[in-house]
Amino acid sequence: MIQTVAFIGLGAMGYRMASHLPKHFEHVWVWNRNFDKAKQHAEAYGTQAVELAQAVQADVVFSCLPTSQDIEDLLAQVELKAGSIWVDCTSGVPSSAKKVAEQLKQHGVDFLDAPVSGQTIGADNATLTVMIGGDKAAFERALPVIQAFGKLIKHVGESGAGFAVKAVNNMLLAVNLCAVAEGFTTLKAHGVNLNEALDCINASSGKSGVTETVLPQRILNRSFPLTFALPLLAKDTGIAVDLVREAKLSAPVIGLAQSLIQTASDLSEADSDFSSAVKLYESWSKITLE
Amino acid sequence: MIQTVAFIGLGAMGYRMASHLPKHFEHVWVWNRNFDKAKQHAEAYGTQAVELAQAVQADVVFSCLPTSQDIEDLLAQVELKAGSIWVDCTSGVPSSAKKVAEQLKQHGVDFLDAPVSGQTIGADNATLTVMIGGDKAAFERALPVIQAFGKLIKHVGESGAGFAVKAVNNMLLAVNLCAVAEGFTTLKAHGVNLNEALDCINASSGKSGVTETVLPQRILNRSFPLTFALPLLAKDTGIAVDLVREAKLSAPVIGLAQSLIQTASDLSEADSDFSSAVKLYESWSKITLE
Amino acid sequence: MIQTVAFIGLGAMGYRMASHLPKHFEHVWVWNRNFDKAKQHAEAYGTQAVELAQAVQADVVFSCLPTSQDIEDLLAQVELKAGSIWVDCTSGVPSSAKKVAEQLKQHGVDFLDAPVSGQTIGADNATLTVMIGGDKAAFERALPVIQAFGKLIKHVGESGAGFAVKAVNNMLLAVNLCAVAEGFTTLKAHGVNLNEALDCINASSGKSGVTETVLPQRILNRSFPLTFALPLLAKDTGIAVDLVREAKLSAPVIGLAQSLIQTASDLSEADSDFSSAVKLYESWSKITLE
Amino acid sequence: MIQTVAFIGLGAMGYRMASHLPKHFEHVWVWNRNFDKAKQHAEAYGTQAVELAQAVQADVVFSCLPTSQDIEDLLAQVELKAGSIWVDCTSGVPSSAKKVAEQLKQHGVDFLDAPVSGQTIGADNATLTVMIGGDKAAFERALPVIQAFGKLIKHVGESGAGFAVKAVNNMLLAVNLCAVAEGFTTLKAHGVNLNEALDCINASSGKSGVTETVLPQRILNRSFPLTFALPLLAKDTGIAVDLVREAKLSAPVIGLAQSLIQTASDLSEADSDFSSAVKLYESWSKITLE
Repeated sequence: MIQTVAFIGLGAMGYRMASHLPKHFEHVWVWNRNFDKAKQHAEAYGTQAVELAQAVQADVVFSCLPTSQDIEDLLAQVELKAGSIWVDCTSGVPSSAKKVAEQLKQHGVDFLDAPVSGQTIGADNATLTVMIGGDKAAFERALPVIQAFGKLIKHVGESGAGFAVKAVNNMLLAVNLCAVAEGFTTLKAHGVNLNEALDCINASSGKSGVTETVLPQRILNRSFPLTFALPLLAKDTGIAVDLVREAKLSAPVIGLAQSLIQTASDLSEADSDFSSAVKLYESWSKITLE
Repeated sequence: MIQTVAFIGLGAMGYRMASHLPKHFEHVWVWNRNFDKAKQHAEAYGTQAVELAQAVQADVVFSCLPTSQDIEDLLAQVELKAGSIWVDCTSGVPSSAKKVAEQLKQHGVDFLDAPVSGQTIGADNATLTVMIGGDKAAFERALPVIQAFGKLIKHVGESGAGFAVKAVNNMLLAVNLCAVAEGFTTLKAHGVNLNEALDCINASSGKSGVTETVLPQRILNRSFPLTFALPLLAKDTGIAVDLVREAKLSAPVIGLAQSLIQTASDLSEADSDFSSAVKLYESWSKITLE
Repeated sequence: MIQTVAFIGLGAMGYRMASHLPKHFEHVWVWNRNFDKAKQHAEAYGTQAVELAQAVQADVVFSCLPTSQDIEDLLAQVELKAGSIWVDCTSGVPSSAKKVAEQLKQHGVDFLDAPVSGQTIGADNATLTVMIGGDKAAFERALPVIQAFGKLIKHVGESGAGFAVKAVNNMLLAVNLCAVAEGFTTLKAHGVNLNEALDCINASSGKSGVTETVLPQRILNRSFPLTFALPLLAKDTGIAVDLVREAKLSAPVIGLAQSLIQTASDLSEADSDFSSAVKLYESWSKITLE
Repeated sequence: MIQTVAFIGLGAMGYRMASHLPKHFEHVWVWNRNFDKAKQHAEAYGTQAVELAQAVQADVVFSCLPTSQDIEDLLAQVELKAGSIWVDCTSGVPSSAKKVAEQLKQHGVDFLDAPVSGQTIGADNATLTVMIGGDKAAFERALPVIQAFGKLIKHVGESGAGFAVKAVNNMLLAVNLCAVAEGFTTLKAHGVNLNEALDCINASSGKSGVTETVLPQRILNRSFPLTFALPLLAKDTGIAVDLVREAKLSAPVIGLAQSLIQTASDLSEADSDFSSAVKLYESWSKITLE
């Protein structure tokens, strides 16, 4: 029986995801490095701000930190409770998930890599997609808790599989950002009306999440609202490249997109939205996508 | 007043597109190099199979041939009627559209480049998307006729703009075919469940026409039904590369995707569906996407 | 019998190349758009500055202009002498050479595409490499004249073949510029001593003209002396891409290098030396190759 | 004082490199997994075939194995002698060199990463290039021993720097193999005489080790003699990609070349010479480089 649930890492996503847990569970513990945020969360949503040592004693512990390295560092400091499940919602590294899952198993703890997609709006509305790797039985035990913030929740394979799917998703996003930037600067250079062109493409075979949402809502209106930082997209495409390398496959388009997104990120402010990647192409072509 | 409408080129698309014209116009002339097909169309839909010389005398002449070169060759053989509009639905070359439009203008004929998307099913249902370049007034005169088979019909710019949008759309399709093949062979190499992964991605930011339709309906079920031939996709991505070159822009992802689709096409049978491009990656990785 | 020789286009290369002709021929006519330069050449080397109309009446006419378009424009203005040979040393476009050769043949004039390599120092020392396309017999008649400034002089094929070889050579230069910039910024990021590394590579299988000459003499010493402008290298790699496209081949590395060199050129001053292409990578990595 | 020298790993390179040591040192121990080869070496060159446990007790221990993993596995089994120097001539992984160097330091042993270039003929003639990373003082102590088989011997930086330079060298080789294959299939498609073209390029700015040696001596004559296996080149370009990734740089050309060489390797027999990589392009273009 799951009696206590904890959430570690109250960033833009975690803060919102944890807000839904008290609707379903009596004891919800939250912890954050900047502890004021945990106290603020407790006040706002009726969770309890607790010490890290206590948080990790919950029956189900969620974590949502910037990188797998942060997770490994945190796990090195704490004692876990046998029989509990650790659900890591970080967009992390598959090989780290495999290693951590094996280590935690030796302490009787199941580790699920469970990255989410849907951005802050999906976290607000509890409609996130959750792609999960790890032990199937642990997945089934954790499922009711994850449903507090997730809508489409899928077990995609063994440890690391969740992170792998997230990395590939974000790589596809990155590839489309590049290709759309290339295609639309080219159209503009040839005097094409971009808005009409976009309508046509969104009714055709070349459409993507980038043409349907990112281009009209973030780029063409020049808003670039920060919801997912470009350096994190660069990190995720890097994870995709590493997956390719580990499997000794050949993936030229992934490799190239990773180089371009890395460059775009290196040349941008750290708090640039991922959609800002198109500015790399704008600086090359002196063409603004508007 | 538009009294006669003609359709030249009764291939997989043209045959279906022309079938809707008699619902709206009394005199619909059709012509096809293999003339039996024109006669068959006349019988099936109540059009009239006529000589090329007569067909080009219609008030609105549609054409739908494999390449812009075919259009130029055909135009070199005929006399057009002043005051008419030529609507070319070929997936053609923007620079050819510009040249032809200028030539036809000297004979008092308007030329619109008006490629379509939506495949044979869209042609059957008269729900094609039509992206049109050329004179705005000519566009407006031709619009009621085009509505016979088109649903979303957009004037996207001057001569060549329609072809340019189509080329960019198909380039985006090509890029996604490559990226999806790379990403999903990588996921499979790591033991991920592809169907569950696909569900997650289709609810996330990496989705595209390829993940939503092509991958589940053509690739994962190994059907590869021929509706749009891979060599034509290779041609269209080549047109996108040429647009980049003409504008002296830099588009590394387009260039790479064109190389890969060209290779996939060169190594395939000529009548392979565009979705077969993933087989290039399957041959590299010895991994089958199913 | 060759009695008169003319040289049209006295740029950095042409000026020097033409300077050797009076050593071997009595009547050497020179012409340049900025005619003062022709007069200066006449004074310095004993050539004769003549009107364009006269220059093109020589038995052998050399031309060395920025692009094939310049050659076509110039040829459109003049009447040539039947029986003469036109030797175009421009780094030009193969398809233009084919077209021009055919046109000139109808006036009894042979056209050879004869681009050179060896830079200004090779032009000074009459040690240029000349790669020649066109009629073999015309090549043999022109050979003694070309030997005035060329050392290695090769007939590489029919019209356009000379330009094609030059484009491929410059493409290989471009590819090496990119790869060396990538490799050496990476080495520097890892704390490697670049000069020692360069010595090792120049004794190993990875060496190239770029590692042997360009990197030590232009880049590592931060001199970037202008002898061959970066926009011309961008133009030449573009010609290589067009050759690939015309032959419907797949050449991913050429395509990518062209994109990168085009970008480097677009972001540089027009009078930047080709070696400045590495600055694109330096701006990305914040690492200076010195 | 160096009294004993050992060589571990008598493959194509190691066997030849070790053959020179008895000319300069009285006690030369050799060991090989297939021990018969060690005995054969002893007979041929006056070395002593000894147990691994003894070999690692030498004052200077050379190793030359396929991968860094092999070195780590071997080191895990043995006790080293304090004060000795381990010189690893494997084409290895920089991060492994750093880790191993740190571990060995704790046992009073210096570790130098010292990959070589020059192929079997350089090993025969003791004219290898050796690029060395690690402690400078250890480098100087080992130098006289390395001179037994090396000609150009450079200290290029701290631990891992030697491996890094080798990886970058081989990456440059890989890039040139690809670019030359692309360029020369294109030239052949346009009817250019490849041998004459090659002479011109080798006198021009596009030349490289590949155009000067590999293309004429291995490819155009269709000999492809096995001296350096294609899968090892794929491994080395992969190391270069990893170096880029670790430094968070962007290197699109390296990434693409790695993909292509990996593909070429995956589609070839394991014992194919590295020059066989061009066959990937030949299979795409149906053009044979001869």
